[in-house]
Amino acid sequence: MATLNDIAVAAAINILSAFAFFVAFAILRIQPVNDRVYFPKWYLKGLRCSPLRTGALSKFVNLDFRSYLKFLNWMHAALQMPEPELIDHAGLDSVVYLRIYLTGLKIFVPITFLAFAITVPVNWTNHMLKHSNLTYSNIDKLSISNIPLGSRRFWTHLVMAYVFTFWTCYVLKREYEIIASMRLHFLASEQRRPDQFTVLVRNVPPDPDESVGQLVEHFFMVNHPDHYLTYQVVFNANTLSKLMDEKKKLQNWLDYYQLKYSRNKSTRPLKKKGTFGLWGKKVDAIELYTLKIEEISRQILLEREKIMSSNNYIMPAAFVSFKMRWGAAVCAQTQQTRNPTVWLTEWAPEPRDIYWTNLAIPYVSLSIRRLIIAVAFFFLTFFFMIPIALVQSLANIEGIEKALPFLKPIIEMKGIKSLIQGFLPGIALKIFLVFLPSILMLMSKFEGFISTSALERRSATRYYFFQFINVFLGSIITGTAFQQLDNFIHQSANEIPKTIGVSIPMKATFFITYIMVDGWAGVAAEILRLKPLIMYHLKNFFLVKTQKDREEAMDPGTLGFNTGEPQIQLYFLLGLVYALVSPILLPFILVFFALAYVVYRHQIINVYNQEYESAAAFWPDVHARIVTALIVSQLLLMGLLSTKEAAQSTPLLITLPVLTIWFHLFCKGRYEPAFRRYPLQEAMMKDTLERAREPNLNLKGFLQSAYIHPVFKAEDESVSDSPLEESERTPDLVPTKRSKRSDSFSSSAHLISHGE
Amino acid sequence: MATLNDIAVAAAINILSAFAFFVAFAILRIQPVNDRVYFPKWYLKGLRCSPLRTGALSKFVNLDFRSYLKFLNWMHAALQMPEPELIDHAGLDSVVYLRIYLTGLKIFVPITFLAFAITVPVNWTNHMLKHSNLTYSNIDKLSISNIPLGSRRFWTHLVMAYVFTFWTCYVLKREYEIIASMRLHFLASEQRRPDQFTVLVRNVPPDPDESVGQLVEHFFMVNHPDHYLTYQVVFNANTLSKLMDEKKKLQNWLDYYQLKYSRNKSTRPLKKKGTFGLWGKKVDAIELYTLKIEEISRQILLEREKIMSSNNYIMPAAFVSFKMRWGAAVCAQTQQTRNPTVWLTEWAPEPRDIYWTNLAIPYVSLSIRRLIIAVAFFFLTFFFMIPIALVQSLANIEGIEKALPFLKPIIEMKGIKSLIQGFLPGIALKIFLVFLPSILMLMSKFEGFISTSALERRSATRYYFFQFINVFLGSIITGTAFQQLDNFIHQSANEIPKTIGVSIPMKATFFITYIMVDGWAGVAAEILRLKPLIMYHLKNFFLVKTQKDREEAMDPGTLGFNTGEPQIQLYFLLGLVYALVSPILLPFILVFFALAYVVYRHQIINVYNQEYESAAAFWPDVHARIVTALIVSQLLLMGLLSTKEAAQSTPLLITLPVLTIWFHLFCKGRYEPAFRRYPLQEAMMKDTLERAREPNLNLKGFLQSAYIHPVFKAEDESVSDSPLEESERTPDLVPTKRSKRSDSFSSSAHLISHGE
Repeated sequence: MATLNDIAVAAAINILSAFAFFVAFAILRIQPVNDRVYFPKWYLKGLRCSPLRTGALSKFVNLDFRSYLKFLNWMHAALQMPEPELIDHAGLDSVVYLRIYLTGLKIFVPITFLAFAITVPVNWTNHMLKHSNLTYSNIDKLSISNIPLGSRRFWTHLVMAYVFTFWTCYVLKREYEIIASMRLHFLASEQRRPDQFTVLVRNVPPDPDESVGQLVEHFFMVNHPDHYLTYQVVFNANTLSKLMDEKKKLQNWLDYYQLKYSRNKSTRPLKKKGTFGLWGKKVDAIELYTLKIEEISRQILLEREKIMSSNNYIMPAAFVSFKMRWGAAVCAQTQQTRNPTVWLTEWAPEPRDIYWTNLAIPYVSLSIRRLIIAVAFFFLTFFFMIPIALVQSLANIEGIEKALPFLKPIIEMKGIKSLIQGFLPGIALKIFLVFLPSILMLMSKFEGFISTSALERRSATRYYFFQFINVFLGSIITGTAFQQLDNFIHQSANEIPKTIGVSIPMKATFFITYIMVDGWAGVAAEILRLKPLIMYHLKNFFLVKTQKDREEAMDPGTLGFNTGEPQIQLYFLLGLVYALVSPILLPFILVFFALAYVVYRHQIINVYNQEYESAAAFWPDVHARIVTALIVSQLLLMGLLSTKEAAQSTPLLITLPVLTIWFHLFCKGRYEPAFRRYPLQEAMMKDTLERAREPNLNLKGFLQSAYIHPVFKAEDESVSDSPLEESERTPDLVPTKRSKRSDSFSSSAHLISHGE
Repeated sequence: MATLNDIAVAAAINILSAFAFFVAFAILRIQPVNDRVYFPKWYLKGLRCSPLRTGALSKFVNLDFRSYLKFLNWMHAALQMPEPELIDHAGLDSVVYLRIYLTGLKIFVPITFLAFAITVPVNWTNHMLKHSNLTYSNIDKLSISNIPLGSRRFWTHLVMAYVFTFWTCYVLKREYEIIASMRLHFLASEQRRPDQFTVLVRNVPPDPDESVGQLVEHFFMVNHPDHYLTYQVVFNANTLSKLMDEKKKLQNWLDYYQLKYSRNKSTRPLKKKGTFGLWGKKVDAIELYTLKIEEISRQILLEREKIMSSNNYIMPAAFVSFKMRWGAAVCAQTQQTRNPTVWLTEWAPEPRDIYWTNLAIPYVSLSIRRLIIAVAFFFLTFFFMIPIALVQSLANIEGIEKALPFLKPIIEMKGIKSLIQGFLPGIALKIFLVFLPSILMLMSKFEGFISTSALERRSATRYYFFQFINVFLGSIITGTAFQQLDNFIHQSANEIPKTIGVSIPMKATFFITYIMVDGWAGVAAEILRLKPLIMYHLKNFFLVKTQKDREEAMDPGTLGFNTGEPQIQLYFLLGLVYALVSPILLPFILVFFALAYVVYRHQIINVYNQEYESAAAFWPDVHARIVTALIVSQLLLMGLLSTKEAAQSTPLLITLPVLTIWFHLFCKGRYEPAFRRYPLQEAMMKDTLERAREPNLNLKGFLQSAYIHPVFKAEDESVSDSPLEESERTPDLVPTKRSKRSDSFSSSAHLISHGE
């Protein structure tokens, strides 16, 4: 058991390291040379093209010493931007994501206060531990362990359990309410967007006489006669996509050599013809690449023609647009035909949110995939230790010596041997954990979700479950998940909460350390962006040939809902579980939430690139997980108290989860529809308003090419080669531009992007 | 342990008693005096007004002896009517209900065949029981108990488990498919019905400026401008309803005395004025009742005016009708406003299916009611023995002697004492079990379902759960449900299937007896209709005063989905559980399904009154429960085999429930929407067809008064006093009548019903 002293030391170390990160960040961020690492968002938005030079002398190093003095005012700046502006700047998703941290603060600040005002003194003024022969520390004196068996003082904890539950539910309900209305307001006040008018139709049944396009047109003309406007079929453009990538690469090389030549007109750049330019005859590089590009352009044109002319490339899915939002809302919410597995309609995700490869999976395949992934995820969660243990047993010293006998003398050296012994077993696990989010993402992709936002939501759910089993339970009851599973199967339903509940107070110090390392230091490291920083400078030094390359070396990253949210949820879980057991944990969680709020607010403003906008569609998941944490905390308290001979409290404690589940169902019914459906009244209001304002709007023109496969966009990009960033990122600007522009690829006029 | 002999004797007794019921039925049904007991359906349909006299001599007793010889040909007759005609005659609900029995036959005939061809020989040719010291019978030699521990023969059972599961799933899938298409065909080929065009709107938010009616009109005019047609508000007519009932009673007495007077013109009938006509001055009965009716009519008129004029009687709910089925389909499937708890729309149930009192429950109240009922049902299921045991302990001999000492000498007589001792403890339980369906129905009503069909579906679910816990599990592991619950909480997850699984083979003979008594004899008793028979003749003798009274004494009863379906499901459960363990049970279940099919087909054709038509909306429930039974059987087999040292089979057995759950989810996604939503294509097809056929249809006239509270209908009925049953029962005839009519209550133009 750690003493208060140990904790203080650990805290000091972590605070210092966090502080060090902040100082490093404060210094690095004001160097012009790092500008693209710490402010990529502004570059992406097109609001900044080169580092701001506020009186700095050098292009690379900031020599203005006054700016070093105000090294923490990024915090202030991060908190300055008001919420509406932030929504405008970074989207509703980011703002609501920040509200998760705020929710944490709202829940835990009063709980911490109450716990320290009431529970801690009640715990402290006992002598249970003193009289026992156990070793104990002052920290344990603050926890529930210090109360004697069957004491009447447990009534305090019982009452507090009710108070905490009601407070948490109250905050959750208010947040749900606010966020639902934020979402609806956001959707309502938005400018015209193609996805408001468009529905994605999947599983169009095959027809011997008509093509998919004709079929779609006829079907919707008949069944939505007053509202149907136009459609877009979905092409299978994987080959084209590959060709485009190659062309882009070649184009980039061409640019590089042209740049080189323009700087030094005396010698035309030469290049060897063989693989990677390592051997073969030297030829004129510019000519070579011009030729190559021409050739690949021909191929692209061929492939494009093939896609356009052959029906084999058309997938049985289409984007159907309506004359009014009302029509789209109706179509997305209703069933179209007798057979509910064909003509599946749903809201079209934002164009940039679509995950194109999954658009054409038939219904039966989808449900088989779901089964496979469910089974696979079960094995991943409970049996992931088996392959790792296997690797570990193979990758020990004897194994290496056997496989590669010539290494034996080196390995047998004392220092190296101990290094390998300490290092090898861990590395397999570390690698697995690093790749886990990607594995989960792959699973979601295989499962067939059609938008990036849905993929991330599902991955987050799975990641949370994995963490719950392997981090939370795994730390409390040591042993692999599989051993736990085996234990739980062999234990009775009322033993399980007891087993876990009893171990909880003992693990408080472990989790405090965990919060400091993973939470505090982790968040502080996030702001330093060490990996992107190093990668950017490496790329800049070795690879960057053109301005475009530099753009691409920037790597702003995204919010990463699929990894970030489950991490926060773990803190909610720890906070709620320990609020009654060892309140000493709470301040550490509070610091985490506050720190993370500031840091992520800064990152969202200055760094992260917004990949999509789902208008906070993830909130029901967040809400459900906090409620789950609440229920887990109640069950564990029940288990703990039943071992404390406070059995008379059981009936009172059982009502808590029942009420909480009911609360969840109530909230689900009351608020979830706002995140899943689109009310007709809202649609009608916007429609009416729009018709009054712009009676002559050419909606068909606006919608015609909104949903085109990104490769067709990329094509335009490389050809037109003009800086159109803004138009892509703010689709609401597109229509006005479009009316003025008539360009070569008029079929995909909307898809121009930000190549330069 | 019962021997084969015992079973044979029991079977003989039950077969004989069933046979006796059939003979009695065959004799009673052809007596003209019983015609209204055994053929009420034909009277209700208006196809029969007096007993058919096929050469019979007497009005009361059938003296045609030839008809006694063909005493079993009702069975043949019952099977004769083809399915489409039966749908026409008794509705789709009844036909699909019969298909549950057919499904049972389809599942169990091949399973029985396979079990007797393969599993039984495998079980029989062992000597496990011979070598053990257990007492055993030949029946046990047929069961899995006869196979030695760890024998390789368990592979047979494993393979058969897969075969049975796949066969059951195959049959279930096909049935779901057929019934879904029957439902859609039924809905499509139906004649025009008001519910096709109408949506029920609940939780209309209060508005200070507008009445509910205006509000509804405005809301739908704005948000469904192209399709909205008309609306009907819902009145709170409970007081009126009571007054109407009273008036009906008085009117009936008046009729009686007038009839009496018309038969015997010499003396005007007299009646005492006091309570129940027992004391007071004798007055002229006809005058008395005429006066009373006049008074109550005045009251009714007053109440009716009050309802019409005051807004307090208008409930925040309305029936909104659309110009097209398409519009109604859209409105029912979409969300109307931001707040998902107001303006809730759903398909209007059939007018006769509506449960009026629940129409105005607000959302929050609904969700609280749901919580209360969930908790109450939990206690009902697991703790129902507590109050009964309490009653039993009070109602013992000592208790009675204490409470009523003067009875002591009588009670102490030997015969009476033993009678009371044998009788009293059971009676409380019996009374409870008789009232259980009504209690469950009350729970569903409290929960706030708005249609009778939904009430019955929910009650059936609860009844099934209750039977599963208290009959199935209760018989296998003796003890009250509460004791079981307690056991299960203290047992580990893998112990529970073992505990149950091990006891299963031992209970085979018990369940065989149960099937014969409850199933065979029960079904045979159903056809005799002993209670309605006696009640009818009693009423006829003592109470029937007028022709209308006789109509009302008829009591055809209904199919009783809420009690009947859970009973069938119990047989599915037993069949699936015992198919692998003791196949000897299967033939008994087959006989039950076959017998019940014939009997209920006869009853549906000749007896039961169809209360509502939900177009087989209950099938998803039926399907889900059979799947549940399948999963239970798989888990119990797993438990049983794991005690048989056949643990190597566990992984293979675990995949079975996983696959079955997946199958269920697949079917749910594939077929359930057909039972919950109404595809737009279908709606559009019917609309187009109708517009082409009847371009000048006055739809508003047709819909205007379709959804009127039944008291307003009853009013018309009792005033006009003409047998209007047919027009009531076939609402599709209404429009032609209505267009001719100019109504009396013009102030309530929307509320007029079809009285004339």
